[in-house]
Amino acid sequence: MKIGVLGGGQLGRMMALAGYPLGLDFVFFDPSPDACARHLGEHLQSDYSEPGALARFCASVGSATYEFENVPVSIAERIAASVPLYPGSAALRASQDRLIEKSLFQQLGIDVARYFRIDSKEDLAEAVSLIGGPTILKSRRMGYDGKGQAAIETETDLPDAWSRLGGQPLILEEHMPFDRELSCIAVRSQKGEIRFYPVIENIHEDGVLRISRPRDEDPLQGLAEEYTRRVLEHLDYIGILAFEFFDVGGHLIGNEIAPRVHNSGHWTIEGAYCSQFENHLRAVCGFPLGETSMRGFSAMINFIGSVPDPEAVAGLPHTRLHDYGKKAKPMRKVGHATVLAEDAHALETRISAVNALIVSEPGLNKKIAG
Amino acid sequence: MKIGVLGGGQLGRMMALAGYPLGLDFVFFDPSPDACARHLGEHLQSDYSEPGALARFCASVGSATYEFENVPVSIAERIAASVPLYPGSAALRASQDRLIEKSLFQQLGIDVARYFRIDSKEDLAEAVSLIGGPTILKSRRMGYDGKGQAAIETETDLPDAWSRLGGQPLILEEHMPFDRELSCIAVRSQKGEIRFYPVIENIHEDGVLRISRPRDEDPLQGLAEEYTRRVLEHLDYIGILAFEFFDVGGHLIGNEIAPRVHNSGHWTIEGAYCSQFENHLRAVCGFPLGETSMRGFSAMINFIGSVPDPEAVAGLPHTRLHDYGKKAKPMRKVGHATVLAEDAHALETRISAVNALIVSEPGLNKKIAG
Repeated sequence: MKIGVLGGGQLGRMMALAGYPLGLDFVFFDPSPDACARHLGEHLQSDYSEPGALARFCASVGSATYEFENVPVSIAERIAASVPLYPGSAALRASQDRLIEKSLFQQLGIDVARYFRIDSKEDLAEAVSLIGGPTILKSRRMGYDGKGQAAIETETDLPDAWSRLGGQPLILEEHMPFDRELSCIAVRSQKGEIRFYPVIENIHEDGVLRISRPRDEDPLQGLAEEYTRRVLEHLDYIGILAFEFFDVGGHLIGNEIAPRVHNSGHWTIEGAYCSQFENHLRAVCGFPLGETSMRGFSAMINFIGSVPDPEAVAGLPHTRLHDYGKKAKPMRKVGHATVLAEDAHALETRISAVNALIVSEPGLNKKIAG
Repeated sequence: MKIGVLGGGQLGRMMALAGYPLGLDFVFFDPSPDACARHLGEHLQSDYSEPGALARFCASVGSATYEFENVPVSIAERIAASVPLYPGSAALRASQDRLIEKSLFQQLGIDVARYFRIDSKEDLAEAVSLIGGPTILKSRRMGYDGKGQAAIETETDLPDAWSRLGGQPLILEEHMPFDRELSCIAVRSQKGEIRFYPVIENIHEDGVLRISRPRDEDPLQGLAEEYTRRVLEHLDYIGILAFEFFDVGGHLIGNEIAPRVHNSGHWTIEGAYCSQFENHLRAVCGFPLGETSMRGFSAMINFIGSVPDPEAVAGLPHTRLHDYGKKAKPMRKVGHATVLAEDAHALETRISAVNALIVSEPGLNKKIAG
């Protein structure tokens, strides 16, 4: 079967690498001439809104999916009218607007940080004083990797935050003094079967994911699964979904969902029996789901801005390089490494070894302590 | 770096799947419009002898390699004159002619079955009587998967064998009453470093590989490594080489070499830390070599003729499907499955489960007892 993918970035690229062994092939619909998945299938290079291109895309594929959550819902609905599109547009609607997303979590009994809808400077001033502590002002739409956000520690930060973000639909959220950032990656099949990967502990820096460590038998696994199941079933979701949480003193706070394969799940390529990419495709194709259990210890280290010397990375023990074939650019995700180990101690040693290869270049790449 | 691959079959396809994460991309030079690697890179569809195509191929790649050993040496030499070609043409020369190959093994002190050069019917009659037991008549060139071979049990088989194969350079080999067929897959880097995978026990049927099981700490590992090392060093070889042996009562008899990634090494994709495909590319690119050690127990089952129901294969525990995207055809290698396990017993159970899905279709696919 030919799978149509909206977007042709590294997530599409890794999806194709997982999909060819299943006998699938791929069309990537992406306006960028540099889409890094372009070598791994047909590249339909066009704006999504171009009707001829959209028709050609639909005519050439057996099923469609997407690798970024900002696909316009109207485009998704036009695709879904002619070919099966997984996940469906309900998931896009829920995840594209932080206000709708948070309301959904509450509706499903999932704890969230206090939040307020912000449509004016006055709304903002009132909400900041109501929360009475550190907050984060966020655009409701099109935010990712910390973009479209401003921290408001005190009322003096308010004018600057407003001048940066005002004039669009906003949400103010209470800043949670979290102990850990966790994600739960799950997959739901066309028959409604759900499988969960072990929860993942994530370290972000400047809003960008740096390190992910899956945690076997984490005390919050059960609750994370329960919350994620509620979202999957409510949306009649098909495919991989990532749910990001805060662990605040053992309480699980729902932060956001991504209706797609997720950066915090890249370790599954080598670290689980069936990767998130393959499981997503299994769901999209109506195949039975693959095993989500861990294959030993593993962790993922992101390469942001530039990929360290590939020979050096490839030369490290039990370390797998993933170079996305993208041009170096400050803050851009250009690759990652997965380290494998027999025990937790060896894992940390290998994370440190990869981290030691990351050259600090101002604005291009940074080491991380974690 | 862009890697040029002569041939665009499943070996090239799996090479590309292993190479993209290293930041490589690929051109496949293959005359067939159906070359199954064509989706995974640029497809230069032309005869190898077409000078314009050869020049374009050389101009577009940083290094070149091949995925079948019948590349004409003259073509290999023309490529090597303008871009690095690994393995070099010496390996092609040695492996393309069974007579040269056997002489090389003897020269390197590697035991071989008794053999005779056959240029006439009279040569054949004399050699059969000299060996005085079961023999195999083989074409010296262009043989693979049991093609170009005829068993001669007694002198009465002689006329039929001659009528099938006579008129080309031939070799008559004593049939070895082997206990096991083994292969040793090794990789040698540009710096001369050599790494060996565990030896693999192979089961063939009708001359075609059916099942491969890597054997950790096999009593013949050391000798297989020693023999393979002699060939690698003698040929100043760079890349993956497969050496096929017979185990005859604990004695190791050299049968043939393949100067490329090999079907008996497909289990390395999931069953070793670094696959044969990645290690081949590491050698071709001048990268340090990856780890050849086993990651738990694994085995590979070939799909010959047709791929069993992919949903059923994908639904088996610890079983990884590899569908090459080729049309079904009798005796054609169209896919394989790798099964993973924690112990030898579970491994056999999983091999049986895959085998149970293989539908016997006369001429198209067959179950195997092993």
